[in-house]
Amino acid sequence: MRHLLSTRDLDLDTAIRLLDVAEDMADTQQREVKKLPTLRGKTVVNLFFEDSTRTRISFEAAAKRLSADVINFSAKGSSVSKGESLKDTAQTLQAMGADAVVIRHPASGAPQTLATSGWIDAGILNAGDGTHEHPTQALLDAFTIRKRVHGAGSRGKSLDGLAVTIVGDILHSRVARSNVWLLTTLGATVTLVAPPTLVPVDTRNWPVTIGYDLDDALASGPDVVMMLRIQGERMRDAFFPNSREYSRRWGLDDGRLHRLEPTTIVMHPGPMNRGLEISAAAADSPMSTVREQVTNGVSVRMAALYLLLSGDREN
Amino acid sequence: MRHLLSTRDLDLDTAIRLLDVAEDMADTQQREVKKLPTLRGKTVVNLFFEDSTRTRISFEAAAKRLSADVINFSAKGSSVSKGESLKDTAQTLQAMGADAVVIRHPASGAPQTLATSGWIDAGILNAGDGTHEHPTQALLDAFTIRKRVHGAGSRGKSLDGLAVTIVGDILHSRVARSNVWLLTTLGATVTLVAPPTLVPVDTRNWPVTIGYDLDDALASGPDVVMMLRIQGERMRDAFFPNSREYSRRWGLDDGRLHRLEPTTIVMHPGPMNRGLEISAAAADSPMSTVREQVTNGVSVRMAALYLLLSGDREN
Amino acid sequence: MRHLLSTRDLDLDTAIRLLDVAEDMADTQQREVKKLPTLRGKTVVNLFFEDSTRTRISFEAAAKRLSADVINFSAKGSSVSKGESLKDTAQTLQAMGADAVVIRHPASGAPQTLATSGWIDAGILNAGDGTHEHPTQALLDAFTIRKRVHGAGSRGKSLDGLAVTIVGDILHSRVARSNVWLLTTLGATVTLVAPPTLVPVDTRNWPVTIGYDLDDALASGPDVVMMLRIQGERMRDAFFPNSREYSRRWGLDDGRLHRLEPTTIVMHPGPMNRGLEISAAAADSPMSTVREQVTNGVSVRMAALYLLLSGDREN
Repeated sequence: MRHLLSTRDLDLDTAIRLLDVAEDMADTQQREVKKLPTLRGKTVVNLFFEDSTRTRISFEAAAKRLSADVINFSAKGSSVSKGESLKDTAQTLQAMGADAVVIRHPASGAPQTLATSGWIDAGILNAGDGTHEHPTQALLDAFTIRKRVHGAGSRGKSLDGLAVTIVGDILHSRVARSNVWLLTTLGATVTLVAPPTLVPVDTRNWPVTIGYDLDDALASGPDVVMMLRIQGERMRDAFFPNSREYSRRWGLDDGRLHRLEPTTIVMHPGPMNRGLEISAAAADSPMSTVREQVTNGVSVRMAALYLLLSGDREN
Repeated sequence: MRHLLSTRDLDLDTAIRLLDVAEDMADTQQREVKKLPTLRGKTVVNLFFEDSTRTRISFEAAAKRLSADVINFSAKGSSVSKGESLKDTAQTLQAMGADAVVIRHPASGAPQTLATSGWIDAGILNAGDGTHEHPTQALLDAFTIRKRVHGAGSRGKSLDGLAVTIVGDILHSRVARSNVWLLTTLGATVTLVAPPTLVPVDTRNWPVTIGYDLDDALASGPDVVMMLRIQGERMRDAFFPNSREYSRRWGLDDGRLHRLEPTTIVMHPGPMNRGLEISAAAADSPMSTVREQVTNGVSVRMAALYLLLSGDREN
Repeated sequence: MRHLLSTRDLDLDTAIRLLDVAEDMADTQQREVKKLPTLRGKTVVNLFFEDSTRTRISFEAAAKRLSADVINFSAKGSSVSKGESLKDTAQTLQAMGADAVVIRHPASGAPQTLATSGWIDAGILNAGDGTHEHPTQALLDAFTIRKRVHGAGSRGKSLDGLAVTIVGDILHSRVARSNVWLLTTLGATVTLVAPPTLVPVDTRNWPVTIGYDLDDALASGPDVVMMLRIQGERMRDAFFPNSREYSRRWGLDDGRLHRLEPTTIVMHPGPMNRGLEISAAAADSPMSTVREQVTNGVSVRMAALYLLLSGDREN
């Protein structure tokens, strides 16, 4: 792999390979010494144009466990805020010898621009761009589902035949987009459930089913229910006057939780609004994978850095 | 040790052991290469809900000299500022494999909550919580006193028979609280001297003597005089219209300095308001341990990280 | 070397030695593993009283490639912003065992104060002080010129006989000052070209020629044209109502670029205002060394850290 920009352009073999390498990385995290010498001497730059402590420290932990040097570059208060172009920033990082750039950017497509511009040879990892994609989030979600379903025998497996329901603010969610492409590539069937005003127009071209009633969707017995984070202003865009109303229609509350099969996997990308899109009981239930998702995030990011930075990046 | 939350619950043996390990660490800092491989592969997270560059970089230097990986997590601009609960932050750090969390928090008791919640297995180090405790500050103070008094023969020694006078804003000072518990456990006699409005009500249950006249207190010939930092608004809470008035009553000025026995140890936790609670001459006098305190801070924090993270944490 | 404070006090031998060691460092950056064990166990503190992400990450990358531990200390939100004196900050870093302090400060002379105060033994590296000096920038510029002119045979060479023209806001530019001293020490002839209001009064004592017409200056066929960054408010200080007017008189636009000899070296310290002091075509032309300058910045900073921190600092 040269870059990790989106899940839309990942083919099945590459997706499975990423998940399998992540399994290897997860195994190393069980050892007494979690650190591997693999990326010694490599420089990973976390280039964050938006704050995201959780994603930044997950990538930082992943890079450090592979012995890479990590440089954090927050655009705030930098020459970027003085109007430096993305081109000049990229060429500066290239000139300093960055081997990988993990980029979070408010503009959809910024990582793609970096990767295809010729400005920089470094491997580009998309850590979230606008409302476009967040591929490592989808990979860690797929990894988490596969591990719950197949356990120690996960390696090489796809998600064939699994039904995944994604609920909430699809419109603004790069997490939803990345999951739609990855999960369907891996063979899962995806249903989106959302208030009509929070469903993007282009979903008509997505390989998904759309539903507008959460109780109906849950009654069909999905294997996985993935709740998305809702933000106050978007709740109001969807014509919900307050969080109680939103929660009543679109939240995974205790009633809905108890009507699910006990084998259902309950997911959330975090940070959660407990009591809004997900109840505390649902978040902390044994069905919930919220904490496994965070743990797996480190393994998946180690795998992505490893595949981008070690050996022949073209293969 | 599992955690380092307060000095109130440290028994004499544990306190002496911490100081003795800190002596070992201090010895390693005299070598050409100051770095030890002890904590290679361990991840230490500095979780700071309040700015404190001095404390943060002291812990960061301590962890790096033990070869741990350090991740700085400032709550500003993070998901914490978006309303994430301490529980979810803790579970996230746990899930990412943090081995130790150094926490600074404006709420008294937050480190205790982390440690006893079951949310996280990592060793918790209290780096200052509200007006409650700042245990590594007290440990470095005790270490500094013991070293001045006993020199190379410090190991195994307590502070038996020493008289320590702590002066200034006791009410808001976690440094004072942590020192009261630790120094008395180590056998010292502690006198607090402060404006009456800056003495907390519960000192009636503390193992200390309270005084309200600095000159009287200094005339009794204490072995140690520890000056606390005063902040503008608190000076006014204590009915001092300006810093000159405060300084005249409660400052270690040049006159008071010269009336002290030359063997008296003059301490300040920093950062100092030179000319306010302590004169420049007092701060820079050979009696002052201000710089030794900072140096010893790194050794004490290395010792705490070592005891929490290496070997069997239960023992 | 004990410190690197200014280029004005660098003699020819020391300057050549720095550039030669930087050549060695540049060679190591071509290897598969770019990291050297040279400064293992050393602590480098980046003490930044002004934001400068580019300079900070260049020093951070340089220190990490030499295996030093790096601690970033931004003065914002630190005890410094609570009024701590530079003296106390310095003594704190000394006491924590800092081996080198890289300082960026808005006050001209702050690094000199640190180095000569006796407050701290660490090697001090000036990363830009007020309008005074930015010595590593000048060193990387000299390195870049020498490498372009002499290629693989650069070692030991000076800049004898080369003509360098520096254009723009000389008045506020520490980059210009550091270059004037270093380039003339290395044997180059320096011409400054600027709006009269942006030429400092004391240039009458500088070993330079002053010009006020950019086209005349370029017509004389300089070997190097170094464009400086102009800031909006300073453009107006120089009586230019807008950027188009400034650019017309003082910018390296496409017309001027094409009138230069194709062997002319075009430099800019970055970040560039493309279309203002330099056109996009000039910035991206093969004559431009903008990216080499950034790369060489890491090598030059590795050399400076190496000379300050390894072996006998007095020699």
